[in-house]
Amino acid sequence: MASAAGDEVPNKMVILKRYVTGFPSEDDMEVVTGTARLAVPPGSPAMVVKNLYVSCDPYMRGRMTKHERPSYVPDFVLGEALVNFGVGKVMASGHPEYKVGDLVWGMTGWEEYTLVPKPETFFKINHPEFPLSYYTGVLGMPGLTAWAGFLDVGKPKKGDYVFVSAASGAVGQLVGQLAKLTGCYVVGSAGSDEKVNLLKTKFGFDEAFNYKKEEDLDAALRRYFPDGIDIYFENVGGPTLEAVLDNMRNHGRIPVCGMISQYNLEEPEGVHNLFQVVAKRVRMEGFMVLDYFNQYYKFEEEMAGYLKEGKITYVEDIAEGLEKGPAALIGLFTGRNVGKQLVAVARE
Amino acid sequence: MASAAGDEVPNKMVILKRYVTGFPSEDDMEVVTGTARLAVPPGSPAMVVKNLYVSCDPYMRGRMTKHERPSYVPDFVLGEALVNFGVGKVMASGHPEYKVGDLVWGMTGWEEYTLVPKPETFFKINHPEFPLSYYTGVLGMPGLTAWAGFLDVGKPKKGDYVFVSAASGAVGQLVGQLAKLTGCYVVGSAGSDEKVNLLKTKFGFDEAFNYKKEEDLDAALRRYFPDGIDIYFENVGGPTLEAVLDNMRNHGRIPVCGMISQYNLEEPEGVHNLFQVVAKRVRMEGFMVLDYFNQYYKFEEEMAGYLKEGKITYVEDIAEGLEKGPAALIGLFTGRNVGKQLVAVARE
Repeated sequence: MASAAGDEVPNKMVILKRYVTGFPSEDDMEVVTGTARLAVPPGSPAMVVKNLYVSCDPYMRGRMTKHERPSYVPDFVLGEALVNFGVGKVMASGHPEYKVGDLVWGMTGWEEYTLVPKPETFFKINHPEFPLSYYTGVLGMPGLTAWAGFLDVGKPKKGDYVFVSAASGAVGQLVGQLAKLTGCYVVGSAGSDEKVNLLKTKFGFDEAFNYKKEEDLDAALRRYFPDGIDIYFENVGGPTLEAVLDNMRNHGRIPVCGMISQYNLEEPEGVHNLFQVVAKRVRMEGFMVLDYFNQYYKFEEEMAGYLKEGKITYVEDIAEGLEKGPAALIGLFTGRNVGKQLVAVARE
Repeated sequence: MASAAGDEVPNKMVILKRYVTGFPSEDDMEVVTGTARLAVPPGSPAMVVKNLYVSCDPYMRGRMTKHERPSYVPDFVLGEALVNFGVGKVMASGHPEYKVGDLVWGMTGWEEYTLVPKPETFFKINHPEFPLSYYTGVLGMPGLTAWAGFLDVGKPKKGDYVFVSAASGAVGQLVGQLAKLTGCYVVGSAGSDEKVNLLKTKFGFDEAFNYKKEEDLDAALRRYFPDGIDIYFENVGGPTLEAVLDNMRNHGRIPVCGMISQYNLEEPEGVHNLFQVVAKRVRMEGFMVLDYFNQYYKFEEEMAGYLKEGKITYVEDIAEGLEKGPAALIGLFTGRNVGKQLVAVARE
């Protein structure tokens, strides 16, 4: 059926079926087929994007819960496609700066086609010579997160002792490599021997350990950091943060990126030794990648350079097809993914 | 008995009798009389100080405990005089820059006379026109703490919403007034109606409340800060910190000065909502006044100016005589003191 707004086509999507408390399951989501139009209404500045890759990120867990007081990101809407960063190709546009065929990344839907009302919230892809999936990771939001969080919030100096949790994940693997490029000593923790091996052999961490095999995390940290930790890049929270606080050095810094260990708990765990923040003069600072979007293109050039020179290596874990989306997302919380998890919606 | 090191005189002192776990009692200390010499050995760069005022500070609680791993300040030594900041007059000196009769403040003993091996750790008193006791407070360590913690760590801007806990104490009363001088809106909490009244009528806080009368601290903070808190000057820790975290504004700052609510607990309470540090991009930063000692004389001039111009008001609670020292120190933890607690050792 033709219309001013273009032909309707089927649009497969992953929707949220119900709000989640505790651990999410695949069954909280559903893959359904709706419709989309591949044109924008006349006069509208919107664009239609064909989604190629969508990203699975831990922070999405928060959006699966119904919040009484507004959260820092909106809750997902039941029955609608999940929303997150992804890579796409412009299929139709009423915006003067976004043309049909442009490759872009930004906040899109877990679906084949997304109508984007504000194209200016999307970034152009300036380095299509890399796999486009990289723009959900090393060249996209997680890359900018690692770069801004480690360099701007962490303020590393050559010789600093750096600890990274969730170190083989999308952000952790890059933080570790940026730390090595800065001349730091870097230790990472991860949840399987395979990941630990990756950290040491592929990403160049000085040391790495499987936290699931450590009965006493404090003792492990004392072993790897006999002189203490200057920078802890915080991805997990809870007991790990507690053990780290006891092992920080004076004037240490903790860029707080996320706390994945706490996202599925109905009652988050308590951190009991915050007085260490005083005793060690620690700066613990939360940050959000959105605050650094104005530096994105600068970051993109810098990171593209590192990739070309082979100074940064990148590992991703791609689920093929939206049907695999729910399992891929849940897998973040069981640690099933090895490297950056994403979903390939279409290979073009 | 005369000797090369001078005459021996009686030296009353407050000693620690036993290390403390849980809540300390007066009985953990004892007032005894030893001896002191009022001269320094020939050739020594030491000095002997006659103590006039010694300060009671919450951080001293940590020094009353025996630590397995070294703490950030040394544990007190059993049987020896307690050690803390105080004001004194030089009685004898082998140091070229410290002369008999000089008025000084620095780390001294809870006793009548103290032999100071390193006089250069003491500051000269440049404004003896103020009560000398002020050098244990508004012109001494707590004053520098408030000044550095609020201005340098807190980075206030005009119009910021500021919350101060333990607000009538040595540091809190000054933070509130510095916040008003900066053009902030300031609310303080304290543990009695008398203190709350002091905050509003004497120190110029915009609002103040008695936290012991609030069943729901979160609700109280929402009442006083409907738009949230930009700066929380943290003196108490525990459940107060938790309630504050839920009420911080984006990019809020928490200079962490101390956590007095936790010092006497055998197991510190947990803080369960640290994820707010990410959601609100909060900077939580511990600091220690020692790191600002190189700015002391600059601070002294600035604060002396405020006092002379009547821009800063100061309230102290003076216990007369070393015999009252143990009760005065314990009183910090029951909130008995109104204003800055100190002990007058000698009035001269």
